[in-house]
Amino acid sequence: MAFTCTIPAVPTQLADDDRVRITRWDFEPGATTGWHEHAMDYAIVFVTDGLMAIDVDGKVSHVEMKAGQAYSRPAGIKHDVKNDGGAPMSFVEIETKR
Amino acid sequence: MAFTCTIPAVPTQLADDDRVRITRWDFEPGATTGWHEHAMDYAIVFVTDGLMAIDVDGKVSHVEMKAGQAYSRPAGIKHDVKNDGGAPMSFVEIETKR
Repeated sequence: MAFTCTIPAVPTQLADDDRVRITRWDFEPGATTGWHEHAMDYAIVFVTDGLMAIDVDGKVSHVEMKAGQAYSRPAGIKHDVKNDGGAPMSFVEIETKR
Repeated sequence: MAFTCTIPAVPTQLADDDRVRITRWDFEPGATTGWHEHAMDYAIVFVTDGLMAIDVDGKVSHVEMKAGQAYSRPAGIKHDVKNDGGAPMSFVEIETKR
């Protein structure tokens, strides 16, 4: 189930070549990506601190992230991401093509 | 040719799985990675602003980076990276295994 989205997170494409697609996501407080699934494996690097809520199949987790933290995830997991904090939150997503 | 390295940049491994290896690099002012070459394609995400000097085969470029900027590079290019600014600089490196 997705979060109710009244504010969309804003994607900015930074690179797209034969190896990766790189997108920065900027979230105002309360903003969400909307329900989505990655066709490619991906990594996330936090550029700001942030309180992130993630909904995976209706199970919501709250994670406090610090700028410079990062994680890797496989393709194919449906999820929704929300800025659950009171300040703008940004991360960069690296999707790997091979 | 490498930069003269009196201060080494500090690597911190954030993830290492079958898809990627993720490393944060923290540079004090003047710190360098030392001469190196990536065996894997990789992407760089800046976590801080920074004035970066890159030496590729003796050709030095100076690049002003902003937090949240990113780029992708192929494996196999020998280079050295230096924090050429007066403040600490950090980026996260994502090396892709496939």
